[in-house]
Amino acid sequence: MAITFTLGEIAAAVDARLIGDPATPVTGLQTLAAAGGSDVSFLANKRYRAELATTAAAAVLIEPAFVDECPVAALVTDTPYLAYARLTHRFEQRPAVAKGVHPTATVDPSAEVAADASIGPGVVIGAGVSIAAGVEIGPGCVIGDHSVIGEQTRLAARVTLYHAITLGRRNLIHSGVVIGADGFGFAPSPEGWQKIAQLGGVVTGDDVEIGANTTIDRGALEPTRIGNGVKIDNQVQIAHNCEIGDNSAIAGCAGIAGSTKIGQRCTIAGAAGIAGHLEIADDVHVSGMAMVTNSLNEKGIYSSGTGILPYQQWKRNVVRFRQLDKLAGRVAALEASAEKKQKG
Amino acid sequence: MAITFTLGEIAAAVDARLIGDPATPVTGLQTLAAAGGSDVSFLANKRYRAELATTAAAAVLIEPAFVDECPVAALVTDTPYLAYARLTHRFEQRPAVAKGVHPTATVDPSAEVAADASIGPGVVIGAGVSIAAGVEIGPGCVIGDHSVIGEQTRLAARVTLYHAITLGRRNLIHSGVVIGADGFGFAPSPEGWQKIAQLGGVVTGDDVEIGANTTIDRGALEPTRIGNGVKIDNQVQIAHNCEIGDNSAIAGCAGIAGSTKIGQRCTIAGAAGIAGHLEIADDVHVSGMAMVTNSLNEKGIYSSGTGILPYQQWKRNVVRFRQLDKLAGRVAALEASAEKKQKG
Amino acid sequence: MAITFTLGEIAAAVDARLIGDPATPVTGLQTLAAAGGSDVSFLANKRYRAELATTAAAAVLIEPAFVDECPVAALVTDTPYLAYARLTHRFEQRPAVAKGVHPTATVDPSAEVAADASIGPGVVIGAGVSIAAGVEIGPGCVIGDHSVIGEQTRLAARVTLYHAITLGRRNLIHSGVVIGADGFGFAPSPEGWQKIAQLGGVVTGDDVEIGANTTIDRGALEPTRIGNGVKIDNQVQIAHNCEIGDNSAIAGCAGIAGSTKIGQRCTIAGAAGIAGHLEIADDVHVSGMAMVTNSLNEKGIYSSGTGILPYQQWKRNVVRFRQLDKLAGRVAALEASAEKKQKG
Repeated sequence: MAITFTLGEIAAAVDARLIGDPATPVTGLQTLAAAGGSDVSFLANKRYRAELATTAAAAVLIEPAFVDECPVAALVTDTPYLAYARLTHRFEQRPAVAKGVHPTATVDPSAEVAADASIGPGVVIGAGVSIAAGVEIGPGCVIGDHSVIGEQTRLAARVTLYHAITLGRRNLIHSGVVIGADGFGFAPSPEGWQKIAQLGGVVTGDDVEIGANTTIDRGALEPTRIGNGVKIDNQVQIAHNCEIGDNSAIAGCAGIAGSTKIGQRCTIAGAAGIAGHLEIADDVHVSGMAMVTNSLNEKGIYSSGTGILPYQQWKRNVVRFRQLDKLAGRVAALEASAEKKQKG
Repeated sequence: MAITFTLGEIAAAVDARLIGDPATPVTGLQTLAAAGGSDVSFLANKRYRAELATTAAAAVLIEPAFVDECPVAALVTDTPYLAYARLTHRFEQRPAVAKGVHPTATVDPSAEVAADASIGPGVVIGAGVSIAAGVEIGPGCVIGDHSVIGEQTRLAARVTLYHAITLGRRNLIHSGVVIGADGFGFAPSPEGWQKIAQLGGVVTGDDVEIGANTTIDRGALEPTRIGNGVKIDNQVQIAHNCEIGDNSAIAGCAGIAGSTKIGQRCTIAGAAGIAGHLEIADDVHVSGMAMVTNSLNEKGIYSSGTGILPYQQWKRNVVRFRQLDKLAGRVAALEASAEKKQKG
Repeated sequence: MAITFTLGEIAAAVDARLIGDPATPVTGLQTLAAAGGSDVSFLANKRYRAELATTAAAAVLIEPAFVDECPVAALVTDTPYLAYARLTHRFEQRPAVAKGVHPTATVDPSAEVAADASIGPGVVIGAGVSIAAGVEIGPGCVIGDHSVIGEQTRLAARVTLYHAITLGRRNLIHSGVVIGADGFGFAPSPEGWQKIAQLGGVVTGDDVEIGANTTIDRGALEPTRIGNGVKIDNQVQIAHNCEIGDNSAIAGCAGIAGSTKIGQRCTIAGAAGIAGHLEIADDVHVSGMAMVTNSLNEKGIYSSGTGILPYQQWKRNVVRFRQLDKLAGRVAALEASAEKKQKG
């Protein structure tokens, strides 16, 4: 099932200037090191410049500045990484999903399903659900009552939407995602925790991607909101009433506690944790595993943690960390003593 | 599908004293800022006291001390947050689940399913399973052989119980939860890791809630135990042979390693990690992302981590952390030298 | 459904020397403390030596050095923990899965399914899939087009394999696992994030175990690779193009970012995070919750973090951590001043 293009077609597809034979056929994309004679490759990171000299690729997506170093055909563009990103979609062999409703699906008679939508095997669609044109629902998904799914949105296998969830257009929701489970809300009472029913839903914008096994809880009173163009990786937890601003990206295993608002174009790196009821400004970048316990009102890069060390060295430093306040007191005492002597 | 109550009915439902017209109709619950004239609101956190003056709510659940500041009808109670919690259930529009076994479910003939239980589409119920009265099993759940589910317990869509799992009464298990997968147990051998079959099960008490995509492993020999009234958030990992005491709460992304025992009324905040074979006393509160590597024998609040900083500032401090033991040595040398001079 | 062996059979099964009556019947395995007169127990950790004296077990798997202290029958072996591990499989009562394809499964006509494979209720198997002899696919699993599953591999309930995933022989994949979702790859563009289609798959070796709700993403161009004998716990996230070396083990909630290569026989403890594009040498042990931000080229144990403290003590030390660079500067100033005085 090889996909074949000519270099001429590739150049046209990504608006690159071809230095080479437009009739050359190519069947794949690869890294500079792994590419063979029928592959297109790309130089997007100068770290890999050394691999350019020896690449066996048919052609390389490359900036004008490096064309002279390219030993094979060049596809010249100012943005080779973006061109590569666009080209990947030409080579994707994602299985087609059959249009229509699979006979093993259970669809409530009151649901509205567009004629060209694809509803996979074993899918369950509740009362009053609305599924727009071009939507794909993978096998085993469960769509709760009164949920709404926008045009061209795709759900991979085994996704759960609880009731009254609204997804925008062109979302891509990966397998195992759960949207709209109850937020974690309980009031203390003499008899233990009194559950607070979660009455809000979840609303996503357009062009949102949500990674495998990620969870986004429904709001307590108002909905949890995911902005346009937001990209969320696997196993991320977004608690009730969070708001994620347009075009922000959240990497794997990050967790955002309840009612926190994240601005636009932020990046939250892997396994970072953001406490509840905070505000994160636009264009904030939080580094991996960082612990965010206060609002970040200025754009910039923020970090926490102590870095990795060999165990014995780490152990000695941790002991000192536990004495750090005392150590600071000892330094202050030395300073006071030195000053006294100078004066005395 | 609006739900309408009068303020008189609301006051009676939560045992509040109404200062206002008992005939006033209300159709929703909202925050002080978002409430309109047909909503009930509440003042539970003094932080929001400023919003009281301008609220457009029909009535506010409020402590006696603040009644004078309330510009609208007052529902006076000593515990407004708890009253709000109770009221949420009156306004919940959770879809009803049909009683009986859905025709697409697969139920082993040896399973005992109460007549008024609800078994959703695509559910699979194994041999010897016992499902009590009032239980709801959402679409796509899989219940392993010889598992037992207590009265009124609800499983949302796509929950897995492995074999020989016992759930108490009135549990609420959210979508994607997996209970009873093998604990992570292997013995080193010359041929690599030798798997240890996990022979224990999992037992939960009554009134337990477990959040979306959380995992609770079966015990190695004896069961993993979750106490009465325990509340667990999303994406929590509880390893084999843990015991969680009554009325403890564990927030999202926390992880508890094998054989650790957590006391009663503890709260474990988000993304905290607790190492294996530890004992955590009753009434311990572990803060978010804390790393617990030793038993905590006294009640109280415990924390770890270094807090968030702008990257450059963090970087400088981390370098110093890595030299902390040496720094402490330098301070000790200065102290010794100063003492010597004093004596000399 | 008790499983009964004689001590003679047990001794033969694990190659132990029996000091006791070979005809004694046993029906279970238990810890020294919990064992009754029909249970076998084991002493693998000297911590439990005190419990040996009072055990009520029928017999104890034990090293030669401790035989004299054993108050009951002894099953003498140099490796009691390994013997216990092997014995657990004799006492496991895992439900048998029916051979053949369940009538509620949906199997594409082009898929090849071995005659003795077990395909559970509601399973969906795509086009061109190949399922080898002895494979078990639990209820609700979804196997994407052109995926390949090796001999004797078992998938628990509700596992997703995307398209073009290859699993080796004797894998055990727990419930909720998602293998082959898109890696988190986007190129910045003036219009927001441009998705990079993920064209690689995932390949696992033989004897791999993957815990509940773990996610392993497909590669961008080449596959993500999991080596032979690798054991992965619950809720682990392995990003695109990672490579995990043979016989490495990764505990719950750990996350490995994209393109990182982990060597052989490594252990990554719970909730550790490893940044992207790093290399971890063979026989590296990363401790729990450690933050790995650089390659680790030497075998050994590595840690990070600050350890748990009572809140007030922690708070004071964190304030000092934030001033650590300044504190170091103050110490240097004191040293300079002291040296000046000495010289002066």
